[in-house]
Amino acid sequence: MSFSPLVERLMEAFRVLPSVGPKTAQRMAMHLLERDRDGGRRLVESLGVALEAVGYCQRCRTLTEEELCGICASPRRDDGVLCVVESPADQLAIEEAGGFRGRYFVLHGHLSPLDGIGPEDIGLDQLEARVAEAGVEEVILATNPTVEGEATAHYIAAQLAPLGVKLSRLAYGVPMGGELEYVDGGTLSRAFNGRLPFQGE
Amino acid sequence: MSFSPLVERLMEAFRVLPSVGPKTAQRMAMHLLERDRDGGRRLVESLGVALEAVGYCQRCRTLTEEELCGICASPRRDDGVLCVVESPADQLAIEEAGGFRGRYFVLHGHLSPLDGIGPEDIGLDQLEARVAEAGVEEVILATNPTVEGEATAHYIAAQLAPLGVKLSRLAYGVPMGGELEYVDGGTLSRAFNGRLPFQGE
Repeated sequence: MSFSPLVERLMEAFRVLPSVGPKTAQRMAMHLLERDRDGGRRLVESLGVALEAVGYCQRCRTLTEEELCGICASPRRDDGVLCVVESPADQLAIEEAGGFRGRYFVLHGHLSPLDGIGPEDIGLDQLEARVAEAGVEEVILATNPTVEGEATAHYIAAQLAPLGVKLSRLAYGVPMGGELEYVDGGTLSRAFNGRLPFQGE
Repeated sequence: MSFSPLVERLMEAFRVLPSVGPKTAQRMAMHLLERDRDGGRRLVESLGVALEAVGYCQRCRTLTEEELCGICASPRRDDGVLCVVESPADQLAIEEAGGFRGRYFVLHGHLSPLDGIGPEDIGLDQLEARVAEAGVEEVILATNPTVEGEATAHYIAAQLAPLGVKLSRLAYGVPMGGELEYVDGGTLSRAFNGRLPFQGE
């Protein structure tokens, strides 16, 4: 025996969500059908509208329902510095950290030849055109410190070098508040090589 | 800065799902918007249809889009035994364990005066009427072995006693494959009190 066809189909549909297995999908379906149908309807409505209306910002490619996202539309950001990130989530993390007042460019992924993801798939032609525009003096390559992120950063650096723009990468080192004991070797050696002169508070 | 209004609204909507916090909701929204819009549309469609069409079986109250669920509609089940469970998930677990060939009655919860959930909210009047019908000889009270489940079982037992039907409760004891070391005291003492004469295989 199993649940009715529509319930089974709903459970199957929940599997599209990241890290949601059969048991979790069942719990989700049961919760909405048994205890929170209104919440379920709100989810249907919000997701339907978002899938319809949310697209990419024409300048930075982040997710937005407008032509230009809030940051690209803002006159109070510095056009001279462009921060390249892999995802809108990375962009949000940087914004929440505060301090950066420049613009962004979102790749929505990283180069991955094996998965057939090439330069055009992550908008590098658009990035080059953007940087070629007057105004961008520095490009901060803030792709993830992973093998793919590094490779993507190097590819972009090589691509933008001819434009004579200043290129930078986020600093590597031990995370604030972390314990050295739990920091991986690669990060530690990076932190040693990049050690800075001590400054008392 | 935050995401665009529609994206923020979508993230908020995902919070209705059980044990989904802000971070998970964000990951779900990003995943569907960035990598799997088709999957998202399937979820919208399946959830919308299920919320519309899935109701309660008129006989056992389990979730179904039909008037009668598969089990109630089946002529091959034993009308003499009625198993009362708290949820469709419990019913499925019992069906998957196999062996039980009777019918079911789903409470969709348990008595919980503090939350204002009384007998009528879990369909006990309907249950009484169902048992009063000719045919039901035994009612298995398979509510959860929790305080609320126990209380609900006792309430139902008292309610059905006048009908002179046989009432039973699932056996308590140590779970198969478990290690005594990790079994809680309450379960262990129940298992001791309910010990059975040894039968060699």
